[in-house]
Amino acid sequence: MFQEFQVTSSPSQGPARLDRLQDELATAKLDGFLVPKADAHQGEYVAPRDERLAWLTGFTGSAGFAIVLADRAGVFVDGRYRLQVRAQVDTARFTPVDWPEVQPAVWMRQALPQGGVLGFDPWLHTMGELANLREALEGSGILLQPVAANLIDAIWPDQPDPPQAPAHAHPDALAGQDHAAKRQTCAKALGEAGQRAAVLCQPDGIAWLLNIRGNDIPRVPVMHGFAILHADATVDLFAAPSKLADLAAHLGAEVRIAAPDAFAGALRDLAGPVRLDKATTPHAVAAILEGAGTEIALAADPCALPKARKNPVEIEGARAAHLRDGVAMVRFLAWLEGASGPTANEPLSEIDVVRQLEQFRRDTGCLRDISFETIAGAGPNGAIVHYRVTEQTNRPLGQDDLLLVDSGGQYEDGTTDITRTVAIGTPSDEHRRCFTLVLKGMIDLSRARWPAGLAGRDLDALARAALWRAGMDYGHGTGHGVGSYLSVHEGPQRLARTGEVPLAPGMILSNEPGYYREGAFGIRIENLVVVRAAAPVPGGDPREMLEFETLTLAPIDRALIDTDLLDADQRDWLNAYHAEVARQLLPQLDAETAAWLRAATAPI
Amino acid sequence: MFQEFQVTSSPSQGPARLDRLQDELATAKLDGFLVPKADAHQGEYVAPRDERLAWLTGFTGSAGFAIVLADRAGVFVDGRYRLQVRAQVDTARFTPVDWPEVQPAVWMRQALPQGGVLGFDPWLHTMGELANLREALEGSGILLQPVAANLIDAIWPDQPDPPQAPAHAHPDALAGQDHAAKRQTCAKALGEAGQRAAVLCQPDGIAWLLNIRGNDIPRVPVMHGFAILHADATVDLFAAPSKLADLAAHLGAEVRIAAPDAFAGALRDLAGPVRLDKATTPHAVAAILEGAGTEIALAADPCALPKARKNPVEIEGARAAHLRDGVAMVRFLAWLEGASGPTANEPLSEIDVVRQLEQFRRDTGCLRDISFETIAGAGPNGAIVHYRVTEQTNRPLGQDDLLLVDSGGQYEDGTTDITRTVAIGTPSDEHRRCFTLVLKGMIDLSRARWPAGLAGRDLDALARAALWRAGMDYGHGTGHGVGSYLSVHEGPQRLARTGEVPLAPGMILSNEPGYYREGAFGIRIENLVVVRAAAPVPGGDPREMLEFETLTLAPIDRALIDTDLLDADQRDWLNAYHAEVARQLLPQLDAETAAWLRAATAPI
Repeated sequence: MFQEFQVTSSPSQGPARLDRLQDELATAKLDGFLVPKADAHQGEYVAPRDERLAWLTGFTGSAGFAIVLADRAGVFVDGRYRLQVRAQVDTARFTPVDWPEVQPAVWMRQALPQGGVLGFDPWLHTMGELANLREALEGSGILLQPVAANLIDAIWPDQPDPPQAPAHAHPDALAGQDHAAKRQTCAKALGEAGQRAAVLCQPDGIAWLLNIRGNDIPRVPVMHGFAILHADATVDLFAAPSKLADLAAHLGAEVRIAAPDAFAGALRDLAGPVRLDKATTPHAVAAILEGAGTEIALAADPCALPKARKNPVEIEGARAAHLRDGVAMVRFLAWLEGASGPTANEPLSEIDVVRQLEQFRRDTGCLRDISFETIAGAGPNGAIVHYRVTEQTNRPLGQDDLLLVDSGGQYEDGTTDITRTVAIGTPSDEHRRCFTLVLKGMIDLSRARWPAGLAGRDLDALARAALWRAGMDYGHGTGHGVGSYLSVHEGPQRLARTGEVPLAPGMILSNEPGYYREGAFGIRIENLVVVRAAAPVPGGDPREMLEFETLTLAPIDRALIDTDLLDADQRDWLNAYHAEVARQLLPQLDAETAAWLRAATAPI
Repeated sequence: MFQEFQVTSSPSQGPARLDRLQDELATAKLDGFLVPKADAHQGEYVAPRDERLAWLTGFTGSAGFAIVLADRAGVFVDGRYRLQVRAQVDTARFTPVDWPEVQPAVWMRQALPQGGVLGFDPWLHTMGELANLREALEGSGILLQPVAANLIDAIWPDQPDPPQAPAHAHPDALAGQDHAAKRQTCAKALGEAGQRAAVLCQPDGIAWLLNIRGNDIPRVPVMHGFAILHADATVDLFAAPSKLADLAAHLGAEVRIAAPDAFAGALRDLAGPVRLDKATTPHAVAAILEGAGTEIALAADPCALPKARKNPVEIEGARAAHLRDGVAMVRFLAWLEGASGPTANEPLSEIDVVRQLEQFRRDTGCLRDISFETIAGAGPNGAIVHYRVTEQTNRPLGQDDLLLVDSGGQYEDGTTDITRTVAIGTPSDEHRRCFTLVLKGMIDLSRARWPAGLAGRDLDALARAALWRAGMDYGHGTGHGVGSYLSVHEGPQRLARTGEVPLAPGMILSNEPGYYREGAFGIRIENLVVVRAAAPVPGGDPREMLEFETLTLAPIDRALIDTDLLDADQRDWLNAYHAEVARQLLPQLDAETAAWLRAATAPI
């Protein structure tokens, strides 16, 4: 079982650890220290060694940070974690702060004197983050000072070692391009921009570039490390050599392996201009280059856009992964209908749902990991957008509740991410109305065509217009980029108001509008889609247009659809989608599940 | 008659004038000189004195510029004017250049040596324009040098004087707020930003701020002048005192009037920081402040946003103007149907259409001007987006053609802008299909609701999605801001991919999707709309949402609608709109026109 449901944290150890950290502050002559939930690679998941925030405070949420001063410690958490933080930290010593309503700079201005010096670990904060914080502190007299060694590491006696999982080659047959060709492409972009090298700080970018996968953190099959891509298309890769023991032949002579502690020296030896992506590069990297007098060119990570635009082999892999994942989803949905129906012995719980779904994915024989912790929210829990069930919150599936299930799998040929909302028992008219409004937006985006050059922001309204007209909306983006057996959240493309990068053929995105009624229910419907050139329409103009191909294959709960609210075109789309789901999945199913799917995909 | 159809220009005088300009270049030791179609206020219309480009080259288009060197002269025009420029200039001496495909900096790099010096009149180019041009020339060694006096003015013996039309007060009863209150509001924004003054360069901003209107240029009721708004809410207004002779009482003691030649000195005396809007401020203004060592703060013109958000009195005025304009439009459409029908003696021409429409607007007794040159494009002329009929291009209305008519009026209580496309004779199925696709987008935008905070860019897709799905699009924005008895094109709000300013209650915009088939026909349907707070929807969430109220009152040609292509909601909107048009206009019409309108607004 990949997913766990226990939260192992207690407020009891925080105060003593805070005492020690405050002693360290005094020794280091600092007025404070920043403790983020982050590692040097800014991923969503960190290794146990990097759980400094949880170790210090007890708070285990997926995002947040602490600002520790001599006389107080603020723990900054967003709306998801307002209750959890109070249960997990000793509030006599740690003060929960509502973030982003209270900005750290505002808090610091109140808590620190003119001339106050706040230390930070320059490997755990990006250039962009530091620049924003410094700008917000302008005129306050508060100084931000990098420290040579993290103060937490100095007081954490049994801090785990960095992860040491061996990496392995990602076969060219799945990557669709060998790493020499990828290196040439990205190096050419550097050359054209007049840059001598780029520092690569994102593990998924490095994994994509070199066709390797790792196992250093859960959910994302990457290896932690840094790399320098030179304009001659060679690469210096900095990672524990033990992790790369089997990869010498795969990497070849043009990828030189060095230990992590050689990274700083290699940076100092670089000739500029050197490209850095301020959104992902640790402040420390920029400081080393600046210290050496090397010219820095700020620009996007050269791997980001090529990685986002999947090649035909990767897209074929994604189709295969979604076919396999679709079988697991259909077996799950069929099981759920039986096991949660009125004839079931006892009600299922959210944890039962998560376990069984993971089991169906394991049954494919191909599951490398889940792509994130499954969200299974029954009734009011469905309205908590980032809900993760624990033994404390576990809720039985009530009759006539909605159940929202957002999940995905990591397969060697592709990463999946799907949300289905299903009715347990009989849905109310209001359930059906809201579900259908969400569905209308999801369909309108699915069947959109648009002139090449538009960004996700330019399409976002299509998924929301029906909800808006009903006085509703949802408080998250409509979709995120998805990697190819990499991170389930991948930039730079987004379907959201922050999505400014033009959509381009090969980009995989989620399409996941929703609606959440606090204390009552949550609805989200999510398919993955891939951008492709649109075939000309009869009677249309000869202009380059793009469209989405839907990858996800699983039925949408017909019991939740109010057919009268769908336009004819929307109904046609749904029936065609269901027919395609049936066509592709039926040959893979046992007779009983096939019968269920036939009914679930019957035309409306 | 406001509109004219004669183009008085000949290529014959250009060469001698070019000779004289090139002599001036040699005397001034310049390698070239920029001749834009622009005045110091960057409006769409310029006074005869500022028609330097036409005087020099013969080219009379509404946009373009020349770069004159010792051995050549490039006339840069966009796609609209590729044919016209060749007919109007002597191509033996003037070289038409395709702009923006050929950027001026690229052309200059090829034509000028390292160290070449190009002169420009610093009053005719904005700070932003100069900064962009200098950036594009970086590394070329080409210098841009402001001249003390425009070289054209020096060789134009009978150059007209600057316009001297008297300005008049715009009644508070129409403005909804006196100018003291407006000055206080804008000055407060300066004070909060820590700025001592703002230089106002946009005549419509000054007209709004001081509740005055003028008559210096056609179509836009403004007075040319500059102003300085001080943080104490007083204003220095620089304009010929003769234009303001009747306004001393209206302007009062807090608005000090000075002659235009006192402007530079007043700028030199300012204490900084002084706010300048780089999009509208002449380079000369910035240069004077820089020369005096005064701190410049770049920010939006403080009048722009308050002017864009019409107050309740202005909105009531807009409704009255649209009711009046609707009567004129209905009389026009009824006349057109009779006069262009199969029983008519001889076919109407585009000029006939323009004349008759202007006459119906004059018949209201309230028309101060048309708000722009009416576009009346029959058949293939309708596909030319910025078409203006002349005696040379005038085309008879063919049977079974589409006719596109885009027009508007300047009334003291409001500015109108409306486009209707009508079928002459019997439309084809293709006409109807394309018209209905445009109409679907126009309706979907009209009936949109959206959460407060979104910009025009975030809604633009709603007007295009139906066309996109059919493989079509249109090459212009969906809508522009509209002034209140001011410019028919007003920022900062836009419904377009370039519309980044959040829409706010009171903003008036056009909603005008279209479709253009080159050589065949053009379709555009345009209503003006005003942003307002949306009433809560039953069953919706308690969140602040906005919507549009439609101002324009005129029927949409039912003969061009393929009802089967409309969704039920779209059909409901159209029928409700037509019912409202009939309800408001019928009491104003004679019996014959009323009968026509009843038929034209019957439900579909």
